[in-house]
Amino acid sequence: MSTVELWRTLWSSLHPIGRDPATGGYLRSSWSAADLACRQWFVDQARARSLDVETDRNGNIWAWWGDPVAGGAVVTGSHLDSVPHGGAYDGAQGVVSALLAVDELRSRGAQPSRPIGIVVFTEEEGSRFGSACLGSRLLTGAIDPEHATALTDAGGITLAQGLAVAGLDPSSIGPDPARVARIGSFVELHIEQGRSLESPVGVASGIWPHGRWRLSVEGVGNHAGTTLMTDRRDPMLTCAYSVLAANKEARLVGAHATIGRIAVHPNATNAIPERVTAWLDARAPDESTLDSLVASIRLRAVERGERDGTTVELTAESVSPAVVFDAALRDRIAAALGGVPVIATGAGHDAGVLASAGVPTAMLFVRNPSGVSHSPAEHASDEDCAAGVAALARVLEELAW
Amino acid sequence: MSTVELWRTLWSSLHPIGRDPATGGYLRSSWSAADLACRQWFVDQARARSLDVETDRNGNIWAWWGDPVAGGAVVTGSHLDSVPHGGAYDGAQGVVSALLAVDELRSRGAQPSRPIGIVVFTEEEGSRFGSACLGSRLLTGAIDPEHATALTDAGGITLAQGLAVAGLDPSSIGPDPARVARIGSFVELHIEQGRSLESPVGVASGIWPHGRWRLSVEGVGNHAGTTLMTDRRDPMLTCAYSVLAANKEARLVGAHATIGRIAVHPNATNAIPERVTAWLDARAPDESTLDSLVASIRLRAVERGERDGTTVELTAESVSPAVVFDAALRDRIAAALGGVPVIATGAGHDAGVLASAGVPTAMLFVRNPSGVSHSPAEHASDEDCAAGVAALARVLEELAW
Repeated sequence: MSTVELWRTLWSSLHPIGRDPATGGYLRSSWSAADLACRQWFVDQARARSLDVETDRNGNIWAWWGDPVAGGAVVTGSHLDSVPHGGAYDGAQGVVSALLAVDELRSRGAQPSRPIGIVVFTEEEGSRFGSACLGSRLLTGAIDPEHATALTDAGGITLAQGLAVAGLDPSSIGPDPARVARIGSFVELHIEQGRSLESPVGVASGIWPHGRWRLSVEGVGNHAGTTLMTDRRDPMLTCAYSVLAANKEARLVGAHATIGRIAVHPNATNAIPERVTAWLDARAPDESTLDSLVASIRLRAVERGERDGTTVELTAESVSPAVVFDAALRDRIAAALGGVPVIATGAGHDAGVLASAGVPTAMLFVRNPSGVSHSPAEHASDEDCAAGVAALARVLEELAW
Repeated sequence: MSTVELWRTLWSSLHPIGRDPATGGYLRSSWSAADLACRQWFVDQARARSLDVETDRNGNIWAWWGDPVAGGAVVTGSHLDSVPHGGAYDGAQGVVSALLAVDELRSRGAQPSRPIGIVVFTEEEGSRFGSACLGSRLLTGAIDPEHATALTDAGGITLAQGLAVAGLDPSSIGPDPARVARIGSFVELHIEQGRSLESPVGVASGIWPHGRWRLSVEGVGNHAGTTLMTDRRDPMLTCAYSVLAANKEARLVGAHATIGRIAVHPNATNAIPERVTAWLDARAPDESTLDSLVASIRLRAVERGERDGTTVELTAESVSPAVVFDAALRDRIAAALGGVPVIATGAGHDAGVLASAGVPTAMLFVRNPSGVSHSPAEHASDEDCAAGVAALARVLEELAW
């Protein structure tokens, strides 16, 4: 079979899991039935390849070709969770590509001189518990485990409860330096999430600094029909103004700002809300631009709150500094691939977390013609996906032999 | 016992049902466990008074002193459902007051010459199925039963399914002209929902025309981190602008406009939404002002949508014309009460629906010092509630003897 055919075969075995047939979007929330089915799919695929499978204390799954205790391992992989109604490729493509790249190398019969690992990180999107790259950040110690166990999902379930449901011990999550020390290099393949890539495969230079902030606006709940306009203290007005201000401030400084998630209390048609919570996603080419962007948005929200008679708080939920991937590794990979484009991205990835923890790290991107991501319309052609598999196999060969 | 003591005793038996102890707000969504418990409370109270209890085909509950088939009945009552996290008084006060007013009249030993009825209407708030005064509108034929059975709640449950759970036959809902014809006059007692009333009790002149419109904004879902600001088609921006425009347009014409309910799809922090739905509640002193207000809001939303690359639809969900209560009945009641204030209201009520169906209808309001409603802070003093009971008893006596 050609690489395109191999791609189609393995891809189609994962593709239906957690897919909403009405929209084509994916609902693979961490430790949902769909996510557990994806995880089982990975374990089955790894075992069918006689790879050694283990789940670490933080719920990340590792499959090994060779003994990882030897150290200096070459690790690839990504994640299987999705944003709600997200696309098929984000994360999943990196895991499927890793399995196929290992197949390709094993079909040649030669044994690598370093162990090769495939990892599936937990809760990369942060869609359930609100904190992105949770599995990799727990692994590397970038998030305090006590803080993490108290995170809650939209239904009030704590991460500790969610872990227990998945058979994990919440008291044992946290930094695992011995496991991190085994990784000699980490290479994550991922679909490109903008329209920056014109060839099938590219290499990442770095990740924009980015973060999530919670905008909490408190007003006074009241009857929508009978309360005079002049008597209102309506938090929806402050929130709406902040949505527009975030957009405008980001445009002014060449950054990105989005409010894509809102919770209204009590969320009734005939009631002025008592409280509106909105989440700000902000990203910028450098940290000082990001800081001043968030400060501007905060200032404008607070000023509007004074006018509306509401109180405004803007609280950082998770902020990731700029990531510059290992230059030597990046150049070695680009050269091995015959000189592919090098591009930066505004999207966070587990690769960024490992890079920040000192692991030599690189990323491969696969072309996304429309640039659409976090949406059912996210797409890469089978041919480009196969090119991604071939590139990843070449990179693993370059690093592990 | 004094009327205040009688009020406190009966009120405290209903007060805990469906109350969220954390906020003091009420969660009495139609046919929820709390709503069913409230309905059972009413049935038990009516039976304890040897009133004849019946539930009509539309789920409204009637308790009779005397034989309603005689016709010319004097009916009072209100509703027991609440907006989410609403106050204790809205609706419930009218039902408790009706029971106590009947107690007061029966304690005098005389028999009325007309039947007296107490009614509990279903889904007055429209909080579950989105359509206000559903029970009274089905009864009078103001809403098409086929349209009504297809209404859905936030979880996708249809009204037909909800009715079946409550033991009602969805195929038999709809106009019940024989039942309406029995009503000689209807008087609803209700907490005032603004700050217009300075004495304990007032009489309503009419209800502002008002309605609910659904604002649907469709854009293109995408990744919040990687999508260039200039490439976005973000429906949240259009919605935010519309929230501010609705507020401004209402202020300009002395009307009320509120967006208090929003649904975002997929509602993820790191995704530009694909679709945002918002509900507009608009009310005005007269119908032409309401029409032009909604037209202005629509125009501004559509214009902003063109700028954002989104598509905008504003669809009426339920619109109620102005109600002017029966002038003769209003004057007779105000005189019987010794000349109490006469005020208009922006809030819809089942009384408005019955008035529009040709039933001679009046409303009594009880003072609300803060004017707060649809919120846990909604409050009337026990003394004012007792004054409301006394006034309602006087009105029933005036009309039924």
